Amino acid sequence: MLSGDQGLPDGIGMARLAWSRLPTADGAAPLPEGPAASAPAQDELFVGAVESLDYEVIENYAYREEQAQRSKFWVPYYIMLKWFFALLIGVGTGLAAIFINLAVENFSGWKFTLTFAIIQHSYFVGFLVYILLNLALVFSSVYIVTQFAPAAAGSGIPEIKGYLNGVDTHGILLFRTLVGKIFGSIGSVGGGLALGKEGPLVHTGACIASLLGQGGSAKYHLNSRWVQIFESDRDRRDLVTCGCAAGVAAAFRAPVGGVLFALEEVTSWWRSHLMWRVFFTSAVVAVVVRSAMNWCDSGKCGHFGAGGFIIWDISGGQEDYSYQELLPVAIIGVIGGLLGALFNQLTLYITKWRRTYLHKKGKRVQIFEACLISLITSTVSFVLPLLRKCSPCPELETNSGIQCPHPPGTDGNFVNFYCSKDNEYNDLATIFFNSQDDAIRNLFSAKTFHEYSAQSLITFLVMFYSLAVVTFGTAVPAGQFVPGIMIGSTYGRLVGMSVVKFYKKLNVDEGTYALLGAASFLGGSMRMTVSLCVIMVEITNNLQLLPLIMLVLLISKAVGDFFNEGLYEEQARLKGIPLLDSRPKQVMRNMNAKDACKNQKVVCLPRVSRVVDIVSVLQSNKHNGFPVSRCQF
Amino acid sequence: MLSGDQGLPDGIGMARLAWSRLPTADGAAPLPEGPAASAPAQDELFVGAVESLDYEVIENYAYREEQAQRSKFWVPYYIMLKWFFALLIGVGTGLAAIFINLAVENFSGWKFTLTFAIIQHSYFVGFLVYILLNLALVFSSVYIVTQFAPAAAGSGIPEIKGYLNGVDTHGILLFRTLVGKIFGSIGSVGGGLALGKEGPLVHTGACIASLLGQGGSAKYHLNSRWVQIFESDRDRRDLVTCGCAAGVAAAFRAPVGGVLFALEEVTSWWRSHLMWRVFFTSAVVAVVVRSAMNWCDSGKCGHFGAGGFIIWDISGGQEDYSYQELLPVAIIGVIGGLLGALFNQLTLYITKWRRTYLHKKGKRVQIFEACLISLITSTVSFVLPLLRKCSPCPELETNSGIQCPHPPGTDGNFVNFYCSKDNEYNDLATIFFNSQDDAIRNLFSAKTFHEYSAQSLITFLVMFYSLAVVTFGTAVPAGQFVPGIMIGSTYGRLVGMSVVKFYKKLNVDEGTYALLGAASFLGGSMRMTVSLCVIMVEITNNLQLLPLIMLVLLISKAVGDFFNEGLYEEQARLKGIPLLDSRPKQVMRNMNAKDACKNQKVVCLPRVSRVVDIVSVLQSNKHNGFPVSRCQF
Repeated sequence: MLSGDQGLPDGIGMARLAWSRLPTADGAAPLPEGPAASAPAQDELFVGAVESLDYEVIENYAYREEQAQRSKFWVPYYIMLKWFFALLIGVGTGLAAIFINLAVENFSGWKFTLTFAIIQHSYFVGFLVYILLNLALVFSSVYIVTQFAPAAAGSGIPEIKGYLNGVDTHGILLFRTLVGKIFGSIGSVGGGLALGKEGPLVHTGACIASLLGQGGSAKYHLNSRWVQIFESDRDRRDLVTCGCAAGVAAAFRAPVGGVLFALEEVTSWWRSHLMWRVFFTSAVVAVVVRSAMNWCDSGKCGHFGAGGFIIWDISGGQEDYSYQELLPVAIIGVIGGLLGALFNQLTLYITKWRRTYLHKKGKRVQIFEACLISLITSTVSFVLPLLRKCSPCPELETNSGIQCPHPPGTDGNFVNFYCSKDNEYNDLATIFFNSQDDAIRNLFSAKTFHEYSAQSLITFLVMFYSLAVVTFGTAVPAGQFVPGIMIGSTYGRLVGMSVVKFYKKLNVDEGTYALLGAASFLGGSMRMTVSLCVIMVEITNNLQLLPLIMLVLLISKAVGDFFNEGLYEEQARLKGIPLLDSRPKQVMRNMNAKDACKNQKVVCLPRVSRVVDIVSVLQSNKHNGFPVSRCQF
Repeated sequence: MLSGDQGLPDGIGMARLAWSRLPTADGAAPLPEGPAASAPAQDELFVGAVESLDYEVIENYAYREEQAQRSKFWVPYYIMLKWFFALLIGVGTGLAAIFINLAVENFSGWKFTLTFAIIQHSYFVGFLVYILLNLALVFSSVYIVTQFAPAAAGSGIPEIKGYLNGVDTHGILLFRTLVGKIFGSIGSVGGGLALGKEGPLVHTGACIASLLGQGGSAKYHLNSRWVQIFESDRDRRDLVTCGCAAGVAAAFRAPVGGVLFALEEVTSWWRSHLMWRVFFTSAVVAVVVRSAMNWCDSGKCGHFGAGGFIIWDISGGQEDYSYQELLPVAIIGVIGGLLGALFNQLTLYITKWRRTYLHKKGKRVQIFEACLISLITSTVSFVLPLLRKCSPCPELETNSGIQCPHPPGTDGNFVNFYCSKDNEYNDLATIFFNSQDDAIRNLFSAKTFHEYSAQSLITFLVMFYSLAVVTFGTAVPAGQFVPGIMIGSTYGRLVGMSVVKFYKKLNVDEGTYALLGAASFLGGSMRMTVSLCVIMVEITNNLQLLPLIMLVLLISKAVGDFFNEGLYEEQARLKGIPLLDSRPKQVMRNMNAKDACKNQKVVCLPRVSRVVDIVSVLQSNKHNGFPVSRCQF
């Protein structure tokens, strides 16, 4: 397409460059023939740098010429391809989610089965095997990330949020980032760290979408010319929006929540035309995930059976609420706001400290750090349940489908761990010495009154909170949804226990309070509103609880906002990603261009300039856009 | 606030006028002291005229001066009031919805009970009473609308859509429009016309929101200075968005659907900050409606019991689908697209014809027209079931909760109408001689195979479709959701019947197909996507059907788009409301300012103009915004 104007630095050629320039992908910039190809070696210097994207159509002569040359089949082909890509993004993200879940569940399952089998003979050997298995998984994750895909570390949501709002961070949407994210999160989540796979899934969806938009990866020769018609940043942003929604839809099996998540994150560039396509992608994900889970129901997927997706089975749970419950619910909201804001603040300090002192010393330190945290996490999760004494099994209804104690190694409630008697279980092991999804399911579980002692829950809360804070920012793919849900549901269940004790007549279920606690912590930390609310409703599949969830979110967000910004905003700021609000801040209202130009590299051009001069200025950097103003210095 | 610069036509004063000007409310323009007050009598000339709204903050000296004078308590008060108003809008719209539903259900219930009682003795007297009751209700509705609130006619959604996109239609958000809408729709829906109360509820919510934003109605001395701080169009638009979402949430008991409806209709001015407040309002509506319905469950609300809100009870219905069902579902989508597009085209012609020939002749003709249509509707709905022969009751499970035949006068399935035997019912009367909500519930009803004969359904489809087309555009408040759902569910059930006959082994339910048919017709006519899909999911409270509903909507929208625009867009265009897409159309890309200025009133000003000249030009009209360009003629 660019072959017609090789090396011609004329106005039309430059203009064409301006609107057809792709964000630097896989280090293979799409300007190989152009005059800017003289400095490709600078690429490495730009790691971590951000670049703005052009989401407006630039209506210049070159654009119009290009449009005039298009055949009449172009528009139908373009629309068809858009929808086809939406389908592919849905299928791809769905499959990626299933793959990650399958792998994580099976690794965790094997790990726990093996450890259970060994501790029947020797606790020390069992402990050692448990620690080493976790270490191996975490090491594989951190090795992949540090050596191969540095952009795959963390949750990726701040970067995606930036991308959707017009800021491109180098390397976040590459093929190797995708691979690193998928395999890295299998290692980090399977290795039992205090982090989740939901954030990485959003990033995975966005990567798949972006790679499709590029027509494959140029570096790995997986591309095709036929599908390379999404040249503008706007089209690619639309695809990434679809991918982002698909990721959320896959992570929580919440198609509507996915759409609303994409919508809430895209603060300033939303187009309502896009919504339907985003929704379609989410629905495709739902169909793919559902089909796969139906297939797995027959037992072909190893340990991945009922588990693997956070779905709270509402059947038998609390379906209604009374007005007296509003007070404890409000208390949960306040706790969520406080703990969430504290979490944001602590992670901010730790991330700053890591950046300044630790991660400068190279990749080995990062690997060592992740392995150390893995050792600590394994030790805590193994040793603490040992210190708790066993509880007798409650009298369960025979048709409730719950077994107590649960046979070791399979997913379920009432883990017996070291308890010798047949009708005993260890309540701390049920949440601590279990895979994340099972732990959450156990915390959310309905009709299991007094399953946990307050002491166990408080121990778990303190330890897991500390672990989540310390783990945040290590060089592995890490989501904050699952730690948030675990922390929140723990104190939620604590409040629920006291409500059950206090209001004896109400049809109250501790599991409902655990759910509200989870919502409150996520609200207090991430400050998302509508999407979080809908995700929570879709997880429970019960619209009756909507007002309670909303109340909790309103309070926790308000309390959190009193102290600091949301987790993603804080992290984005720390990473140097400028997120613009839809409305300018008060302080910006009184600024003028002179203030904004201060300390910036400003190029002054005379009123009448030669094209060559302007071209040379444009070539001297890799920015995609330039504010033009009349400053006087 | 404006008292400081009475009659001073200086620049600051004019600028202040520009940003503090409210849309003309109740004929009491907020410029009584200003120089523009000289021509208030022109008001009547502007009925039906549209005016653009200023949704951008105009950053001029006056605005900054005003901001500087605000006390430090202003911002907290402002935010608090915003949320308080969101609460009030939710409560108000919820109460309005309950009032309308209560009134409609009770009027309908009494009407049917009385008619049933009389036809035991004489069919002719029963028919006469039925006709007269309907006529009285419709007459009250059309009289209120034509004499008192002309802007309350129709659904109001095109106008609200226009308002949210920056176009103010005169009179749509007045207090009398609100009153006319509420009482008018009770009359028109209770009178059995082929129209619904859902569109009017959206308008009602918007009116309540706008009146709150104005701080009450100035004309009826119901205002307060304390709450009049929402001066800018932007703030008022935000409130109206909340009201619009509240209306949908109230109409369908679908809080998420309400938010998405508002989002989808607001094409170009969406702010993600607003979303949470909109969602809060919707949730408040859900709580209010739910509380009221719980209260009514004890039988205190007359005929308003289980009925009154379109909720399809999923229990016992089809919960899953197989891949073989995709073909019949796609066929439903195509039928929906074709019939929906035809509906739009026919209503367009009829509305044009009415405007040109009928409604020019004055209010009496409008009243006569509505009464005539009421007579025709009553006759058709009474006489046609008489011509059908009775069907024997199917063998129902004793615990299904369905009675056959249903006792006359109460809401339910299997209406026996004139059938003498105890175990017979009239299938056409079950849908035709019943209140709308009951008819829809009967069409959606699960586990009632072969309840309707194909002949009855086809008769109903043809007659109701014709009635809906003819009724559209009369001078009564009229929504198109319910007619759409009734038409769609009829052919959906027809397709479902053939599926049940053809694929004998599948767990297919005719009611599910009725639901899909309803979605397809609404999709084919209104061309809404995400919001409609979520509303349908919330009505059924079953996420499993989401992919099917989505498939149906995708197909029906695509088929419909092939023929014409959506119903609301067509009607908005007919009413002269310019709806701008978020992206300019292809033809606009090649236009320049000269083309746009053609045939328009263009005022040319010299480069250096006196303030007095500009002020006189600004005063010569009532527009809120002016494009300034350099045209050469």
